[in-house]
Amino acid sequence: MKTYAEYLALVEADLAPRLNSLGEIPRRLSEAMRYSLEAGGKRIRPVLLLAACDLMGGSLDEALPFASALEMIHTYSLIHDDLPAMDDDDLRRGRPSSHKAFGEATAILAGDGLLSAAMELMLRASAEMDSLRGVRAAHAIARRCGVTGMVAGQTVDVTEEGTAPTADKVRYIHLHKTADLLTAPMEAGFHLACANPEELACAVTYGQQLGLAFQMVDDLLDVTGDERELGKKTGIDAARGKLTWVAVRGLDGTRADAAAAAEAAKAAIAALNRDVSFFTALADQLSERTN
Amino acid sequence: MKTYAEYLALVEADLAPRLNSLGEIPRRLSEAMRYSLEAGGKRIRPVLLLAACDLMGGSLDEALPFASALEMIHTYSLIHDDLPAMDDDDLRRGRPSSHKAFGEATAILAGDGLLSAAMELMLRASAEMDSLRGVRAAHAIARRCGVTGMVAGQTVDVTEEGTAPTADKVRYIHLHKTADLLTAPMEAGFHLACANPEELACAVTYGQQLGLAFQMVDDLLDVTGDERELGKKTGIDAARGKLTWVAVRGLDGTRADAAAAAEAAKAAIAALNRDVSFFTALADQLSERTN
Repeated sequence: MKTYAEYLALVEADLAPRLNSLGEIPRRLSEAMRYSLEAGGKRIRPVLLLAACDLMGGSLDEALPFASALEMIHTYSLIHDDLPAMDDDDLRRGRPSSHKAFGEATAILAGDGLLSAAMELMLRASAEMDSLRGVRAAHAIARRCGVTGMVAGQTVDVTEEGTAPTADKVRYIHLHKTADLLTAPMEAGFHLACANPEELACAVTYGQQLGLAFQMVDDLLDVTGDERELGKKTGIDAARGKLTWVAVRGLDGTRADAAAAAEAAKAAIAALNRDVSFFTALADQLSERTN
Repeated sequence: MKTYAEYLALVEADLAPRLNSLGEIPRRLSEAMRYSLEAGGKRIRPVLLLAACDLMGGSLDEALPFASALEMIHTYSLIHDDLPAMDDDDLRRGRPSSHKAFGEATAILAGDGLLSAAMELMLRASAEMDSLRGVRAAHAIARRCGVTGMVAGQTVDVTEEGTAPTADKVRYIHLHKTADLLTAPMEAGFHLACANPEELACAVTYGQQLGLAFQMVDDLLDVTGDERELGKKTGIDAARGKLTWVAVRGLDGTRADAAAAAEAAKAAIAALNRDVSFFTALADQLSERTN
């Protein structure tokens, strides 16, 4: 196993060349996709995919196109989420959001392009393999980001804005809007390493619980976080009538639930009886983070 | 080989159940996706995929998920294309367009959802096959609808609006915005039937030339067509400063070029030395159509 920084370096070096490998992309489209893709962030999803594949003895070279594809999917979801008709955010990571920098039409197309590019990259890589492990990994990612996964979570997040928050509704949004895209890299990495169904079940539980902890902390930071440290405004969720875990469980309840979800994640991955220190440390870091 | 009506009936019966087979989709999202998917149209792309697979001796049962997926991709592109920031069309096939019926946020998500669902369906079907023929078909579709294909064509169509039309620019837009999505079903159907590279090359040329003829006639009908027969307003392209073949070659030149493209399509498919009457008849119908 490598360190977070080492996996991150692999991802950062892969993203732009991987996108360019698809061929001649119109300049305006390519610029808009790269603007958002290169805006940085923690790259948790692709790093997690590489680490998951590595943990189970798979090949990092084989995992890289899937890791970069997953970051493209995450990026497309942010671009579309920021659009005026959706969350109407002018800033993303301290820079103008895509539609502010390139206009709405190009932002819509850049999002469509990143999702399409991600699928194309995974399919190209899968077509070059000698087994169906690539297809299984790509299928897991497509399902988690699709109409019963992330897009479902986004839809309920948008359509239920301003309605009374209930634990069931918030949990559905958190599971699909956030946790599905942290479960996807665990599943995909395990599929690429040809893990068995029992091992896959541990990976899925780890991803889901990590995702729930991650989103609960996100909800907390929107109330208690430091705007400068976060690089974004706080108090946004309440102002918009977003359904958050804090609205259902309060600050102390949310802190306790986030810690419990992180513990559940660690217990699930520990059941593999491998050196899972990377994954336990990540669960601790994400559930105790301040930005 | 079956008739167009018979392939069409297979597609119509498959679309909604195939989408529903993905699981529990949030009601608003599901309604918006089905509203656009069930709006009808000629279903040329999925019919072509079934016919292409059938011509080369492949299985129609295996081809159906790919056919429905391709129609979902075509439908997503129409929903996003109609958005106010893009072509700003309030009507589609005589009914309010998606964003008029469901609001912009849901329309954006319905488009994202249809593209995601298409990829998920193709990957699920591919994972159940005993060879990589499904992956190759899905990869061909992803490439033709992606950042060097349809999304590239859409981008140039939008960003070059109002600039001086040249044959090179219009040809690029027609090839990618339109012809790529008619080439995709030919390639995918042939891959599913395990066709060889020489046969694939014939299929690609047929799809591209059919697509060019189709779009040239579309450009013609926007000038000369009957609004009632077309079910949409004419004169839109000129009013918007769209780059069309008519602007480059005039009415007579466009008529001649469309006929030549249809002949090139027929010659390419005839080279297969099979009973290609379905494909030659389709080329004639599309290049001589009045709606």
